[in-house]
Amino acid sequence: MSANQSVPDVTRRSERSRRAIYDAALALVAEIGYPKTTIEGIASRAGVGKQTIYRWWSSKADVLLEAFLDLGEQAAEAAGQAPYTFPDTGDLAADLKQVLRATVDEMRDPAFEAPSRALAAEGVVNEELGREFVAKLLEPQLQLYVDRLRSAQDAGDVRPDVDPRIALELFVSPLAQRWLQYTAPISYEYTDTLVDYALNGIAPR
Amino acid sequence: MSANQSVPDVTRRSERSRRAIYDAALALVAEIGYPKTTIEGIASRAGVGKQTIYRWWSSKADVLLEAFLDLGEQAAEAAGQAPYTFPDTGDLAADLKQVLRATVDEMRDPAFEAPSRALAAEGVVNEELGREFVAKLLEPQLQLYVDRLRSAQDAGDVRPDVDPRIALELFVSPLAQRWLQYTAPISYEYTDTLVDYALNGIAPR
Repeated sequence: MSANQSVPDVTRRSERSRRAIYDAALALVAEIGYPKTTIEGIASRAGVGKQTIYRWWSSKADVLLEAFLDLGEQAAEAAGQAPYTFPDTGDLAADLKQVLRATVDEMRDPAFEAPSRALAAEGVVNEELGREFVAKLLEPQLQLYVDRLRSAQDAGDVRPDVDPRIALELFVSPLAQRWLQYTAPISYEYTDTLVDYALNGIAPR
Repeated sequence: MSANQSVPDVTRRSERSRRAIYDAALALVAEIGYPKTTIEGIASRAGVGKQTIYRWWSSKADVLLEAFLDLGEQAAEAAGQAPYTFPDTGDLAADLKQVLRATVDEMRDPAFEAPSRALAAEGVVNEELGREFVAKLLEPQLQLYVDRLRSAQDAGDVRPDVDPRIALELFVSPLAQRWLQYTAPISYEYTDTLVDYALNGIAPR
């Protein structure tokens, strides 16, 4: 919700506090990592009492989860897109390339990169947290690819026997691994190539 | 080197110390993470003086790097394979499926999983360490895929315009991401499917 004149003062104040808490949580986890981030630390940095945080969230994981959801919504709005939507122009390759290029942009954005790395690192060694964040943050985004690939199957652009949940990994996972593990550089040309290889295969046609 | 009667006593003692140090380093990093693992802690757990470690290695990163290389060699030997080789039977799909199934086995091995996760997590937030371990541990393994794909290009089984270093990511990265981020289960059936999709593409032929 954005502040506007029809919103009462108390809601505007709450909205400001909520945004300050998100910013503090993302900054702290980026700077000191997930294990050392505490509700008290977030409250202190946000300039609110910790009871304010406990009124809205039950744990630091919950605060961070919502902070990341908000970050994704802001990024989508800044890019002029509705959050949690996927283009469907009828040209599957073009649509996939567009979304992956936007992901490359997001991965290069410092506001996204540092907190995302901190959380991803913790998820690797903390299975419970990893699974929660995958279920609530990553999987909903992957399901947008599933829906787009199903639409492509209906249009005859993807074979009917292909499992869309596996197929999306052919282009999503390579980009994720290059970014997460610094295995190689990321670029638009790279993600475009992934889409072409995944759609057409690497064997001769 | 394995201990045998032609090896002098001093070398056998060194070999035992070296193995104890590897085991201690892998166990410690799995239990307390990379940042808290110290040369002193490794020495204490291995039952050697820390000067013994400093005689052979200059940092904890170096100890861990060699411990992982040793772990990989032991796993290859236990599987009856020569380390750092890749099958080339002439059947590309079969060879890729065999290697990926062996990787699934390794990922499920507790001796491999816990220290590998600890190191991968640190590499996500510690770019210097991440890049060093990719260069020395991961990239040499990926180059085996590159060589196999080049041989397949020579045989006409992969299109000549395909970049093997990108193509390998179509099956290697999805498995890595499922394992690292708990995004979905791993199985032989899954990795076999990845190989089929990557070779043939997901679009109709």
